[in-house]
Amino acid sequence: MRILVTGGAGFIGSHLCDRLLERGEELWCVDNLRLGRRRNIAHLEMSPKFHFVELDLLDQPALKSLFVTAGFDAVFHMAANSDIAAGTTNFRLDLELNQLTTVEVLEMMKAHGVKRLFFASTSAIFGETDAMLHEDFAPLEPISFYGASKLAAEAYISVFAHTFGGRAVVLRFPNVVGERATHGVIYDFLRKLDADQGKLEVLGDGNQSKPYLYVRDLVDAVLVAWDKANAPFAVYHAAGLGHTSVREIAEIVVAAAGRPDTRIIFTGGDRGWPGDVPRFRYDTTRLQALGWRPQHHSTDAVRYAIDRILANGF
Amino acid sequence: MRILVTGGAGFIGSHLCDRLLERGEELWCVDNLRLGRRRNIAHLEMSPKFHFVELDLLDQPALKSLFVTAGFDAVFHMAANSDIAAGTTNFRLDLELNQLTTVEVLEMMKAHGVKRLFFASTSAIFGETDAMLHEDFAPLEPISFYGASKLAAEAYISVFAHTFGGRAVVLRFPNVVGERATHGVIYDFLRKLDADQGKLEVLGDGNQSKPYLYVRDLVDAVLVAWDKANAPFAVYHAAGLGHTSVREIAEIVVAAAGRPDTRIIFTGGDRGWPGDVPRFRYDTTRLQALGWRPQHHSTDAVRYAIDRILANGF
Repeated sequence: MRILVTGGAGFIGSHLCDRLLERGEELWCVDNLRLGRRRNIAHLEMSPKFHFVELDLLDQPALKSLFVTAGFDAVFHMAANSDIAAGTTNFRLDLELNQLTTVEVLEMMKAHGVKRLFFASTSAIFGETDAMLHEDFAPLEPISFYGASKLAAEAYISVFAHTFGGRAVVLRFPNVVGERATHGVIYDFLRKLDADQGKLEVLGDGNQSKPYLYVRDLVDAVLVAWDKANAPFAVYHAAGLGHTSVREIAEIVVAAAGRPDTRIIFTGGDRGWPGDVPRFRYDTTRLQALGWRPQHHSTDAVRYAIDRILANGF
Repeated sequence: MRILVTGGAGFIGSHLCDRLLERGEELWCVDNLRLGRRRNIAHLEMSPKFHFVELDLLDQPALKSLFVTAGFDAVFHMAANSDIAAGTTNFRLDLELNQLTTVEVLEMMKAHGVKRLFFASTSAIFGETDAMLHEDFAPLEPISFYGASKLAAEAYISVFAHTFGGRAVVLRFPNVVGERATHGVIYDFLRKLDADQGKLEVLGDGNQSKPYLYVRDLVDAVLVAWDKANAPFAVYHAAGLGHTSVREIAEIVVAAAGRPDTRIIFTGGDRGWPGDVPRFRYDTTRLQALGWRPQHHSTDAVRYAIDRILANGF
């Protein structure tokens, strides 16, 4: 298949490119390099089946030209502002990078007869609730523009699938960790440690607790969902096993970084920023019924990701 | 209160202006007159508490200037592309007129400390399902850009309410009928009768069946929800009692128009256009618990609306 991977030089996108190339697909990896990095895909650029295109999805003429020349069979739409905190006060950032990029992609797919779409969605569409979040949980009351923009994108994809004959697979990602991350809690802590070796400031009270998933386990989930989805608009959840608190992550980071004497300081409050969902419970039985299992417990995923990030550079 | 009513010269917006003025509020009725009509509010323009402003909500400087000078206490955001069929193939129409107008309004409200919002949403956010649609029903799989854009707008309003200290009331409208309508099934039929007195072409097989609500019953619902909502992000459904099929509406229209010999011709298929939801069942118990009751059965509402439209001109 001839596949467009948007955001393909980003954290998760680049791992997905690894796996799709291993499967023998021909890839057009598109990225505006706003969060993505060329070095994340440097090891792929020698492959004759891998094509990197620096392009902003909101540049309509450039995107159209790419669709005309490449003749895609499918699109994996991974491009996004994945930094939730960055969009907290900016009404436009997530709207443009998450939702409007999706609308552009859908419009091109319809115009060029490309039927198959994978979309990277998020648990943040649900907002803050103690309920067990299965795929059909409601109400959906996002508390971040990130969550709102991804929910909006899902809604447009639903129209594409139900009205224009498309087939879409939506996987709602949890917190994902691993090498090549461009932001996120581990990345932030390592940067802070680099800047100030005496202390590590943690946003919130450290009790925020989430089911972290290692990035390659997530890519397994993407491909299981992609291969086995059996509806025109198929939605799945994936998450790590168990939970890990931010306090635990801070402790693992200072130990792994060889700085056990670092003082860990909490700014207080139950969340890192307005729009942060401090904890959620995620029902992944639908995807597990298709055969997916994460290989790492949440805290093991965090440990492994820190080791990989330290080995890989950040 | 000093209230901004967006889309205030439109079908439902103008009826809402009537009622808000009766309650003694001071209104700024904003409309770009794309679907709205000056004559819908002509009877209000003599009131010292009614101010009409011709303005497009996507014109940021003009909207900002209005917020600065008027000092609003609340916003009723009624402006929308309410013609679902018109947005069927156009990715931008509903996006811009339904969702991006909402984002503009929210941004202005946040910037100017306006906390209270009413939003006109729709049953179309749910897509096509046989289920009884209560407010927390899921999955939400819209099949029209109209439904997708309204769902997207709700998501942004959720962030406004949960993160920025706003208070929002969302009422998901059913099919609404009455005088001053600018489109819709009755309006379409009357226009077609005017153009060709011998026959009336009906899109679909005529069996599409919906709980039509008379516009003043809807405005009652708006005000009950507004007065009694008890959550920062409060969502309600309103609908007429019972259902009316498109075939029945066609028969009532030809009788009321004094053209009983008109041949009614059905184009066939279970819906009027791609994105039309042919039937839905709407649970309105949440709003009824606050004291709201529609005054008209669905088919009575249709009859009454046709009489009022014929008396009022269309």
